[in-house]
Amino acid sequence: MNSRNHIAVIGAGLIGSLLSIYLAKRGYKVSVFERRADMRVSNTEAGRSINLALSTRGIKALEEVGLADVLKSVAIPMHGRMMHDLQGNLSFLPYGREGQYINSISRSGLNEVLMNEAEKHNVTFHFNNKCLAVDFEQTSLTLHDLNSKQNVTKEFDLIIGADGAFSAIRSAMQITDRFNYAQHYIEHSYKELHIPAGENNKHLLEKNALHIWPRESFMMIALPNPDGSFTCTLFLANQGSNSFNSLTTSEDISTFLTRNFPDAVKLIPGLINQYHTNPTSSLVMIKCFPWVKNKTLVIGDAAHAIVPFYGQGMNAGFEDCRILNNLLSKHNDNWPIVLEEFQTIRKPDTDAIAELALSNFIEMRDLVADPKFLLRKKIEAKLHELYPDKWIPLYSMVTFNDSIRYSEALAMGRKQQMIMDKILTTPEINATWQQLNFKEIVSQLER
Amino acid sequence: MNSRNHIAVIGAGLIGSLLSIYLAKRGYKVSVFERRADMRVSNTEAGRSINLALSTRGIKALEEVGLADVLKSVAIPMHGRMMHDLQGNLSFLPYGREGQYINSISRSGLNEVLMNEAEKHNVTFHFNNKCLAVDFEQTSLTLHDLNSKQNVTKEFDLIIGADGAFSAIRSAMQITDRFNYAQHYIEHSYKELHIPAGENNKHLLEKNALHIWPRESFMMIALPNPDGSFTCTLFLANQGSNSFNSLTTSEDISTFLTRNFPDAVKLIPGLINQYHTNPTSSLVMIKCFPWVKNKTLVIGDAAHAIVPFYGQGMNAGFEDCRILNNLLSKHNDNWPIVLEEFQTIRKPDTDAIAELALSNFIEMRDLVADPKFLLRKKIEAKLHELYPDKWIPLYSMVTFNDSIRYSEALAMGRKQQMIMDKILTTPEINATWQQLNFKEIVSQLER
Repeated sequence: MNSRNHIAVIGAGLIGSLLSIYLAKRGYKVSVFERRADMRVSNTEAGRSINLALSTRGIKALEEVGLADVLKSVAIPMHGRMMHDLQGNLSFLPYGREGQYINSISRSGLNEVLMNEAEKHNVTFHFNNKCLAVDFEQTSLTLHDLNSKQNVTKEFDLIIGADGAFSAIRSAMQITDRFNYAQHYIEHSYKELHIPAGENNKHLLEKNALHIWPRESFMMIALPNPDGSFTCTLFLANQGSNSFNSLTTSEDISTFLTRNFPDAVKLIPGLINQYHTNPTSSLVMIKCFPWVKNKTLVIGDAAHAIVPFYGQGMNAGFEDCRILNNLLSKHNDNWPIVLEEFQTIRKPDTDAIAELALSNFIEMRDLVADPKFLLRKKIEAKLHELYPDKWIPLYSMVTFNDSIRYSEALAMGRKQQMIMDKILTTPEINATWQQLNFKEIVSQLER
Repeated sequence: MNSRNHIAVIGAGLIGSLLSIYLAKRGYKVSVFERRADMRVSNTEAGRSINLALSTRGIKALEEVGLADVLKSVAIPMHGRMMHDLQGNLSFLPYGREGQYINSISRSGLNEVLMNEAEKHNVTFHFNNKCLAVDFEQTSLTLHDLNSKQNVTKEFDLIIGADGAFSAIRSAMQITDRFNYAQHYIEHSYKELHIPAGENNKHLLEKNALHIWPRESFMMIALPNPDGSFTCTLFLANQGSNSFNSLTTSEDISTFLTRNFPDAVKLIPGLINQYHTNPTSSLVMIKCFPWVKNKTLVIGDAAHAIVPFYGQGMNAGFEDCRILNNLLSKHNDNWPIVLEEFQTIRKPDTDAIAELALSNFIEMRDLVADPKFLLRKKIEAKLHELYPDKWIPLYSMVTFNDSIRYSEALAMGRKQQMIMDKILTTPEINATWQQLNFKEIVSQLER
């Protein structure tokens, strides 16, 4: 392929839009096909979650396409987790070192900035175009135009499916020979609830934190929005006690929410109405391999959708784009080599973040309220302070880093966990942890 | 539902045909829709593997519908594994006790008997009918008649998808909310080769055995056919050395097969031509849950396709039918209760046989040639002889039994393996195994 070649990107979401910028900047002709209407002119669909946590890996990719500054200016820094107990008492746990934070950002706002930027690079967006079929031999797409009701089949030099967890491109791959595929729905689903702004757009909870109401078998979180409001997300099991299925009457819902989230409930007007009106959404994990069939690739959620508990879904998808672009530079746009190398090196990393995201749900809903967990975080912070390059807490390796691969972070995190598990069995550790031999502890990492 | 109700079965394969007999015998009106032509009048497609191993669980179901005797009369008993080494030397390892055997049976012959029997019970078969869509709310099917080229949508009281590993019914379920699904292709594929009969339809290898050429990273097997021929199945990796991908030239293929299967190669006329002409087929495992959406059920391979190495795919599907029928009797044909109970009790068992089938590949291609493995089998046979109800070898629990669930067999097999692993570390065990305290060994099972 040469840079005059024509690439079809399926999906004008976050990943498809960012990818189209990268490709257009390399000189390719890029056409993006999107099933939905243009979110910039039509508000028919609000999208999925309202806000997202943008962190270092995502920012790195935005920097490369020249958008990091504009986006960071509208994002809200969240320096740590603010835990709310059953009495409404607060405790704060920083995410990393002083000055390290994640960013609450509007999904639709970010998406619009990316689409506008892509258009500046002559990317063309074709909305209301649904992908009906893919021919992997001809590298052709059959698209249904929802406006004209016409079907058109077009050939391209390359097709990239960035069309999300329910990808049409991946569905077509699924029925080809020797395509491994798994979709797994976790036991919990979620529902968003809205805390409006106070007077003068004031945030009614601490603005610069991610709020968590950890309740062991379930939890609620809240992220700040620029208009002073918060978007809460309630995570409940589908079945059993305290589940979306068991809570049906307004009275039960009200009793349950008031008992478990007393301070939040006061801030949510029309709580019961919101609960009944807002959809309950499932949480699915997707794994597949290969990601490449001839000259068609899947990327982002289409290749590796994960649960949201590490705040890494979008960041991992943006990192996909950055890595693909790096490989194109390394191999002078030799696509067959690039595609093969991309899926080979990237697959173990997306498997790793899938696992980390799932286990972080346990940490968020359960462990953050556990004194042992808090002590562990304190000791790890100390180790990181004394040996900043040697002992990097797992959360920081994943969130505040773009040079450690997810799979390396997972492996190192396991090693750290074994060391910390042992330390926490030390008698009187709560009182004596500051006398630990930190140098010796760090040296254990190298064994 | 009452017995006047109309049930659609999708797929006229082994499971769909047997299931239709069970249901018709209960009084239901049963219509079977099959994508292919009627195999009894059209030979356009030979089907998949030519022969299958029918064993106790499958026979039990055939007995219930009154077909066991007729089918056993055309089946060929296989009393054990006949191993062929690199020099063509043979060694025989029985499957069970004296008089226990599995049966080589023709897939198409068995299928035809089942269809003919179903028609006697007024089951109607509709061939060349492809399922295009399922409406789980209306319990309706949209079928495309390949002859008339017409699409028809019909409502039923119940729909059962017995349409195999690439089930159209399951594909429709896959895009409903919270449906867990995985398809996994193993590294090896297979190719069938044919050993014709000798003079007077004489079998040119021992007739009453399943032949194995175990070669560690690959293997070949052969099953006898009633006409005196054998169907060989060569299992090779797809990639790497000694793989379907690496063996491309006729010279390489000939050298490889002659070196590894010298005695078999002499019996296969036109070996290279057969190798090039016969297809290479993939091996896929399918898991999904739930199996039920409203009044639609998937069963057999459509719900739980497994690899063929335990010879249990068909037997497990037949057992599905038997268990479903038992539950209908138990609950007076109260289908909502039956469907829920069926998937709940049966899922752990099909997961177990999936795992057993995969690990038996290792045993067949590798361990059966290992002296330690043979000693283990000898000790286990002795334990079984002395305590026939207490120590039942895993293979026998799976193959020569219909009252031990697959999940129970797997759990018991693990316990046995731990005990045997320890015994085999005994010094001089080869010479002294007959002096073992067998009573004490068996008592370990109860700890």
